[in-house]
Amino acid sequence: MSVIRNILNSRSSKDGNFFMSLTQILGFKPKNLAHYRKAFTHRSLNIKDDKGNTISFERLEFLGDAILGAVIASHLFKAVPGGNEGYLTKMRSKVVSRKHLNELGRDLDLINHVKTNIPIDQFGVNIHGNLFEALIGAIYLDRGYKYCKRFIYERVIDPYVDIEQLEGRVISYKSLLIEWCQKEKKEFNYEIYEDTGNDEIKHFAVKLRIDDRVVAKARATSKKKAEEKASKRAYYALQNIIS
Amino acid sequence: MSVIRNILNSRSSKDGNFFMSLTQILGFKPKNLAHYRKAFTHRSLNIKDDKGNTISFERLEFLGDAILGAVIASHLFKAVPGGNEGYLTKMRSKVVSRKHLNELGRDLDLINHVKTNIPIDQFGVNIHGNLFEALIGAIYLDRGYKYCKRFIYERVIDPYVDIEQLEGRVISYKSLLIEWCQKEKKEFNYEIYEDTGNDEIKHFAVKLRIDDRVVAKARATSKKKAEEKASKRAYYALQNIIS
Repeated sequence: MSVIRNILNSRSSKDGNFFMSLTQILGFKPKNLAHYRKAFTHRSLNIKDDKGNTISFERLEFLGDAILGAVIASHLFKAVPGGNEGYLTKMRSKVVSRKHLNELGRDLDLINHVKTNIPIDQFGVNIHGNLFEALIGAIYLDRGYKYCKRFIYERVIDPYVDIEQLEGRVISYKSLLIEWCQKEKKEFNYEIYEDTGNDEIKHFAVKLRIDDRVVAKARATSKKKAEEKASKRAYYALQNIIS
Repeated sequence: MSVIRNILNSRSSKDGNFFMSLTQILGFKPKNLAHYRKAFTHRSLNIKDDKGNTISFERLEFLGDAILGAVIASHLFKAVPGGNEGYLTKMRSKVVSRKHLNELGRDLDLINHVKTNIPIDQFGVNIHGNLFEALIGAIYLDRGYKYCKRFIYERVIDPYVDIEQLEGRVISYKSLLIEWCQKEKKEFNYEIYEDTGNDEIKHFAVKLRIDDRVVAKARATSKKKAEEKASKRAYYALQNIIS
């Protein structure tokens, strides 16, 4: 009896942990954990459903890729009213490039939740992006298009989709800002510190000071990203002065 | 004064006609006609918005293509639980093939609503599919993802997406049914008549009788399609007997 209770308890506490991790990753509460479990199941586990189909995140990748494509398309359509079809197609492929998806998956540390019989270090680099897509597929099944949109705006579009950067007109906001400070003889300083907060993965926070005044703050999963984010914010805040 | 009134009247009656045609095409009432007007505007009209961007349906094609891809992906994901990523990708590309989209656009007679400075007969065959995609883009902007899904189910998935046919396992339900009737020594008869109903485009209705009993009815834009649709319905109705 106590053995059974122990198993049940350990199982439910495992579910509880998964639920909490997911809530942090998603930014909202998942309803049906089964979809997310699939999104983190590698085929090497060789689990089958009652019809004998192998369960893995690969099918969800297909679904997530399509939903991501639709959300990014609709964002670009609205954000760039002057962009023609060819332009929009090109911009979208930059946003959903394998490289970018891998970064997004890595940022969320998705690989940490994968169930697999293969050692994690034997996965190729694309595992990160694949898990990111599969996660979007799971969100779609669990909460529908609206929540996918919300997740993609929070995790992809708001932090990373910058039209000027995508167009290659701005390579780095940090260099833009430094250039301006040097020209205007202003002192600048990036103060960086580790700030894990409640997140599972390491975060860095940065305060950007110009002439001893904090003009922007940002937080990201790498020092470089945090600096770039803060610079971008400062750039837009100072835009009237700079341009 | 009477001239102005005439212009206004003619304009509002034009809007009324467009609204009515759209409602028939869409299966629901459009809210903001402006989106649909764009979906039927060819760039040869050379209309510009207040920022100088040329208005045409081409941008909406990009959007509609992405939404259509997402809805079909989610349908196939659910309809074929045993299909892997490669299979699902292949099936989707069959559903959204240029040829199929052109058929769908032609069925709805979308070209009839295009505003253009180029004679319609100078458009290539892909105009039909392009307008179909643009229309989905307009629905998305006007009523969101849910209405796109509803439209795509009604116009694409329910009438035409048949997994067995897509897989090439069933070429034609009509031939399956005839084969069965011959084997079972049953008499069959397809009774076809023109039935335009309230639609703008010609429709054909068919009654399929087996041994003098009407086993299925269907309605489509060509005789062949109507027969196939009725045969498919009969096939599923009789499936327990046939297989």
